[in-house]
Formats: sequence, C-alpha cells, structure tokens
Amino acid sequence: MSDRQQVVTMAHGSGGRAMQQMIEQMFLRAFDNPWLNEREDGARLSLAGLSARGDRLAFTTDSYVIDPIFFPGGNIGKLAVCGTANDLAVSGATPAYLSCGFILEEGLALDDLQKIVSAMAQTAKDAGIAIVTGDTKVVQRGAADKIFINTAGIGVIPTAVNWAAGTIKVGDKVIVSGTLGDHGAAILNLRENLGMELGVESDCAVLAPMIAPLRSLAGVHALRDATRGGVNAILHEFSAASGFGISIDETTLPVKPAVRGICELLGLEPINFANEGKIVAVVSAQAEEKVLSLLRNSPLGADAVTIGEVTLNPQVCLRGALGVSRQLMLPHTEPLPRIC
Amino acid sequence: MSDRQQVVTMAHGSGGRAMQQMIEQMFLRAFDNPWLNEREDGARLSLAGLSARGDRLAFTTDSYVIDPIFFPGGNIGKLAVCGTANDLAVSGATPAYLSCGFILEEGLALDDLQKIVSAMAQTAKDAGIAIVTGDTKVVQRGAADKIFINTAGIGVIPTAVNWAAGTIKVGDKVIVSGTLGDHGAAILNLRENLGMELGVESDCAVLAPMIAPLRSLAGVHALRDATRGGVNAILHEFSAASGFGISIDETTLPVKPAVRGICELLGLEPINFANEGKIVAVVSAQAEEKVLSLLRNSPLGADAVTIGEVTLNPQVCLRGALGVSRQLMLPHTEPLPRIC
Repeated sequence: MSDRQQVVTMAHGSGGRAMQQMIEQMFLRAFDNPWLNEREDGARLSLAGLSARGDRLAFTTDSYVIDPIFFPGGNIGKLAVCGTANDLAVSGATPAYLSCGFILEEGLALDDLQKIVSAMAQTAKDAGIAIVTGDTKVVQRGAADKIFINTAGIGVIPTAVNWAAGTIKVGDKVIVSGTLGDHGAAILNLRENLGMELGVESDCAVLAPMIAPLRSLAGVHALRDATRGGVNAILHEFSAASGFGISIDETTLPVKPAVRGICELLGLEPINFANEGKIVAVVSAQAEEKVLSLLRNSPLGADAVTIGEVTLNPQVCLRGALGVSRQLMLPHTEPLPRIC
Repeated sequence: MSDRQQVVTMAHGSGGRAMQQMIEQMFLRAFDNPWLNEREDGARLSLAGLSARGDRLAFTTDSYVIDPIFFPGGNIGKLAVCGTANDLAVSGATPAYLSCGFILEEGLALDDLQKIVSAMAQTAKDAGIAIVTGDTKVVQRGAADKIFINTAGIGVIPTAVNWAAGTIKVGDKVIVSGTLGDHGAAILNLRENLGMELGVESDCAVLAPMIAPLRSLAGVHALRDATRGGVNAILHEFSAASGFGISIDETTLPVKPAVRGICELLGLEPINFANEGKIVAVVSAQAEEKVLSLLRNSPLGADAVTIGEVTLNPQVCLRGALGVSRQLMLPHTEPLPRIC
C-alpha cells in the first residue's frame, strides 16, 4: 500500500495485487502463524495433537456488526475473537482455531482496520487461539456500514464433558459469573449520546480460562454466554430445551450502579441487556458452592453469584424484593440493534 | 412470522422471539440435521466417524457479497455452499460440515430469503454436506445491501493426500477443468444490462465429486478453484508459492463463444474472469492423461484440457497463436466488484 492509500478501496477486495498486498502487509503480519503462512485457501490442521479418542469437535460461528466499531473496553475485532471463543468455551471446548471473514466498506480508514486487526491478533494471542484462515470482501460505499467481521471457531471438547441444556434438572442452581448488562450499557451510553460520564466499559473478554476448571467438576449441566438478548434470553433457551422453568431472585442480580442508572433512566431491565464477558451456568445444588468458588478464583468471575433455580413450573419468573413473583417474558425484540 | 411480516425486520436479529421464530420456521426446517437440531450455540461433531489416524482437518471460510443476489445458474445461497465446499475439496478434503452466518438488511423480502435458504439446503444435501451451526444479524436499511452470507467449512483430508502449491515442479502440466469465465460473464451481462441474450449461466457447482477420484492418483501437485480474479489469479498464486513460472498456450483456453463475445465487446480477458465451478490443477507430465481422463469422467469436467506448463523462468506468460509470448500481469483490480 502506498502512502496515498489511506482508505479501503474496491481494489482491496478484487483478488488482484492490491488485495494480495493488504493480506501480506496487514493480516499475515498480525495473525502470524504456520497455518496461515502456508497461503493455501484453507488451513490444514493436524488432528493428532488436538484430540484423544472420543473427544468431539466444537464448531460455531458469529457475524459481528456492532455500531460503533470502537467502544470503551474494546472494538469490533476484539469482540469477534472473544464472542466466538466464548461460544466454544461454553460448550466445554478449548478454543483452538478461528477463521475470519471481513466485509469492508469502500472508504474505511486503513488506520481503523489496522487497529481492529491488531486487537484481534492480540486477543487471539493472549487466549492461545490461532486465526488460521480468512477472506476479505470490499463493497461499495453505502453497501455496508464500515466493517462487518465473521469468525468461525473450532475447539475440542474432552470426552468427559457433556454440557447441554437437555441435562438440566429441577432444583438445579442458576449462576451468573458477574455483573449484568455492562456491554449493552456501554454501547447504549455511547451510541445514544446519553452523555453519562459513567466509566461503564464493555465486559468483552475471552472466558475460556475462567470456564476451563469447571470441566473436571461433576454436576455442571449447561453453560451459555449471555450476549444478545442478555441473561433473559439464555434463561428462556434453557427453559425451552429442558421443559422446566427458572425462578430468579431479583434481589440477587449483580448490576453495577452506573448500569442500573442507565436502565432506570430508559425504563429498561439489565437482565435483557447484552454482555460479552458473562456466563450463565446451571449446576446441581451439590456443585453450587464449588462452581462459585472456581469462578471467583478467576478475575473474570470475581462477582459470580447464584441468581435462581430450576423449577417444575415451566415458566421463567422473577421474584422481587417483596416476594411477589412475575413471569419474565422474552421481549419480541431487544432494545438495542447491532449490539454485537 | 405472521402473514403481515413480509420482510426482514430489526426484530429478526434481536435475540428475541422474532429471531427464534425465524430460526425455527426457516433455518431449522431447511437445514434439518441432528447437529443443528440440538439448538446449542455451536455444533458438537464426533471425530470418530470423521477420521483415521494421521488425517488432517481442512478449515476454510468465505463471505459472499455478490450483486445481484439472484442470477442465471444460482443465487447467493447456492454460491455460499458451493464456494466454501470447493475450497475444501481443492485441498483434498471431503467437505463435511458448514457454518452459516447471515447479515440481513432490514426490508429484505422474506420470500427472497426463503429462496436463498432453500437453495443452500438443496445444494448442501446434494453434496452430502451438513449445515451444522449458524448466526443471523439484521442491520438497518442502508447499512448492508440485501444479504451477505459467510460460510466456514470443515472437511477431512486423507493421510495420503498432500496437495500444495509448494510441491509444484518445472515441467508439470497445468490443467483447467472446463470453460473459463462463465460466472463472471453471466453476472456482468446481468448487472451491466448488456442485454445480450446469450444463455450464459454461472457455472456455480460443488466440485467435490469431480475432484475426489484425483486423491488416489500420484503426481497431482496442487489444485485451486479459480473464482475471484479468474485463472490468472491462481496462476500467479502458484507461481509465487513455487518460485517457478507458468507458460500458457492461449489457443488452448476453453471459452464459450458467448463469453468470448462479452469479453471482446468490453475489451476484457476471460482468463481474468471469475468462475465458480472450475479448478486449475498442476500435475506431473506422467499423470496428465490420467487426470484429464478422470476429470472428463465427470459432467463437471467434460471440457477439461491442458492449458500450459510450469517453467523455470518465474513469470506467468501467455503464448499466442503466432507463437509470440507475453507476460501476463496480475491486474491491480478485477474488472468486476462483488462477483462472489
């Protein structure tokens, strides 16, 4: 790229020289690893080092369209690595390999792209994940909004781990790993120009180190990371998959005062707000204290707490401070589009 | 979805009820398979049935942003399955599993989405590929152009197969599996309103059945599917990876008369035009006839032909009808943006 090219041009997506240069000078440098450096159209991964007999492969994908692309606590690149790594980790897998597909709008500043790519590289490196294959498309100005990133991820689930919502039982405890709604509140504050000087940051983080110790524990039934739709969406997924209900004690929900302030100002509930660094776990009553202790051992789970339990009545209910219980509905739509 | 909802709305991407309904009524029905039906956030794939000791995993991704989304010979959905399956197949893998990430523009007709999803499902089914995990995002009107699809794919490469551009040798033969530029010409004719009644269709197809027999053959050194950037881009990739050059005999290039007509009208070269159903293979001189014969056994490779050979001189050259040779440069940009 010459000094004059300060923005993404259609040529960067053409399969020609300009694209080759961007791949070499930006992506290969940042994501440097032996699989990517082979320069084949796909990565070739050895299974030998990956797995023991009986292990299963976890495979997941997410596209990231967050607006704005830079926010307190991260950017769309960091999010694209964290989000997909977390989907692997909550299935019990060790996140190993990511693919990365960029859709770039003509005119995107190359400096912004470099910052995003650097954040992806650093986040992946810190988490021991390799970005092994990728693709770049450029569309005309106005045909996309700055940058969209898709990542797909592969990890290996050890034979002994069988976390699934179908294994949830009545009497199980529902645990969250920390404060609710930090990501949603940070984006809302920024995007809607609420102008609140709150210091609220996205909780965007790779959760695999916090989750890994749970894999050797009996009584862990199901894990999910509570992103779009918040903890409420996960509770409804657990309820639908198990056929049981969940009763949540509203007074136990961990919410930062600043996040609560934003919610009250707008009449929204933090349980519906997106997180990017929090899990919901359903565990047996016997395993509850051990799970809380293991989560709290990690800085990512310092505020882990039990928020409710699984009930025979197949509704998701919220029990308030006065003991009155009301059914918690899944909203038809989330308050915030393009939150991830 | 009620009868009144004829288009994609922001609610379809919200993580709420509307999104759950679209996933159930459209995606799960179309892509029906046991992995997807588990309704976990990622698929859990058994390694046992996949692989023998020493086999490697192929992992690849592409985003599809083609404009227009419907075209003679296919649509963006069919393309998204074929393109990624072909990237797996040219690495020597049997395509097995796909992920699928949709980015939808608010206002996209649900009928169009259904057609696209149905084409993906049918193409995957015909090719024995399962779409095992997915994601849907919706962005506001004007923040994307109708629909973008990312697919990532996993397949297993048998132990004995070691196709790689680094194994190319001087004297190797360069083979294409059929006519050049059909996809690019079909899109160009449609999009630029050339109004030519040519019957030119995209060659969009899953090539795995044509490629599979080559895996038991000695002397196959490298395969690529010639998409964006055309055969020319692949020749330059092979040259860069091997350190050798390639000399192409212009008179042997298979081009349909109608495609040649479009090219001459616009002053473009079919060797730079995109294909979505053609491979370029570099094989030993000893293997040449056998490879041609195996390719021609498949209806997808009926027009397979040798177009040139690998040279010590590290340039890509085109030898014309009069025997004059000129260097073939990689264009700075491809003539057609959003061709795939």
